[in-house]
Amino acid sequence: MSVVAPLRALLFDVFGTVVDWRGGVVREARSIATVDDSFDWGDLADRWRTEGYLVPIGEIVGGTRDYEDVEVLLGRTLARLVGEAGLRVATDDLERLAGAWRRLDPWPDAVRGLTRLKQRFVVGPLSNGSFALLTEMAKRAGLPWDCIISTELFGSYKPDPATYRGAVALLGLQPGEVILVAAHRGDLRAAAACGLRTAYVPRPLEWGPAGPSPEPPDAEVDVVAADFEELAERLEAGDPTP
Amino acid sequence: MSVVAPLRALLFDVFGTVVDWRGGVVREARSIATVDDSFDWGDLADRWRTEGYLVPIGEIVGGTRDYEDVEVLLGRTLARLVGEAGLRVATDDLERLAGAWRRLDPWPDAVRGLTRLKQRFVVGPLSNGSFALLTEMAKRAGLPWDCIISTELFGSYKPDPATYRGAVALLGLQPGEVILVAAHRGDLRAAAACGLRTAYVPRPLEWGPAGPSPEPPDAEVDVVAADFEELAERLEAGDPTP
Repeated sequence: MSVVAPLRALLFDVFGTVVDWRGGVVREARSIATVDDSFDWGDLADRWRTEGYLVPIGEIVGGTRDYEDVEVLLGRTLARLVGEAGLRVATDDLERLAGAWRRLDPWPDAVRGLTRLKQRFVVGPLSNGSFALLTEMAKRAGLPWDCIISTELFGSYKPDPATYRGAVALLGLQPGEVILVAAHRGDLRAAAACGLRTAYVPRPLEWGPAGPSPEPPDAEVDVVAADFEELAERLEAGDPTP
Repeated sequence: MSVVAPLRALLFDVFGTVVDWRGGVVREARSIATVDDSFDWGDLADRWRTEGYLVPIGEIVGGTRDYEDVEVLLGRTLARLVGEAGLRVATDDLERLAGAWRRLDPWPDAVRGLTRLKQRFVVGPLSNGSFALLTEMAKRAGLPWDCIISTELFGSYKPDPATYRGAVALLGLQPGEVILVAAHRGDLRAAAACGLRTAYVPRPLEWGPAGPSPEPPDAEVDVVAADFEELAERLEAGDPTP
């Protein structure tokens, strides 16, 4: 007889899963920086995300780079990318643009889905965004989190196992009582390795309309849903079942 | 010319300031434990708060006692007090009663006042309750926090200066941009010593109808308000002014 603990809490990856970082960065860039209309801000957003976030965080988790605040990493990379592109952006505007990650909009289903999921479960982010960034983003975007969990609280970044374990411990729960919701397989695999359940919500527009198709879900994923409203339906219907 | 930073965030003491711990403990005790109706649960609640919380936390902050989780401290003291009172309470019921601190009701003005304050400021607890306790309490009681800050995040308890400084740093703010709201002078004095602004909201019923009168406010307190709705009025009107 297997005994499976009931699901108590949902933790969400944020950048790409809850909010549209590419669309938000492009929108802010166009409103802040007065440059040639033909400039490809989408391409700059993609490089910013990759070179200012994904790569250095991977190096930090891999132990080949010292920990730094995510907004420090992003700010430094933005300055470099803008310089390399030969853009002339005032320092004040550059600082404002660096803060765009605090002002990203949620995917259209996110607030409705989270509001529904919050009726039955504890909902919170588990994000590499800083505590201040996530708090400010939630307030502006109306994300109805029960609490804010940033990997900053553990002095590390996902996919370090310490971040998943730390989040579960903060909630006073067992790993099997918590499900990680993410649009990224690597995040879900790392959570599963720590005993959390997993929900895959692909976001086909994360890298823009011309971006790559989402990866197919791993067979081990507990729930797959097209958006947060379908996720709420699935969880209310009893998925994941033992 | 003095330049005073605008107020950005309000941090709240919780036990006694936001929620009525005594009333909640007595209510839960009466519903859980089947003992003689004449038993004075209010007195037990007072002793539980003092001996299982105030005294050991003071010792931990003072450096004469090792850090332990607040619910471990409370649970151990409850078992002792129940034993000393000669009460026969089943182990399951004792465990349920120990969890009463997660199910305390807010003072009548608290949810309305916080909802109003949340329109203009970041609002969050800064409490010696654990992160899990504060998250569960907020969900049950409908406290509309923007984030949960427990002193657990800093491995210490108020009034350790590290807790006030740590909370301000997590929010990415300067101390002068944050106000601590509390019904307790010691808490406010410790926050002020770290550069935070302070708001005193006395709670005359914290220790029950026969309890001591609230302490008069220190002259240094920035704002005094009778409840959270008056606090919202005062802050919307521009208090504290430079």
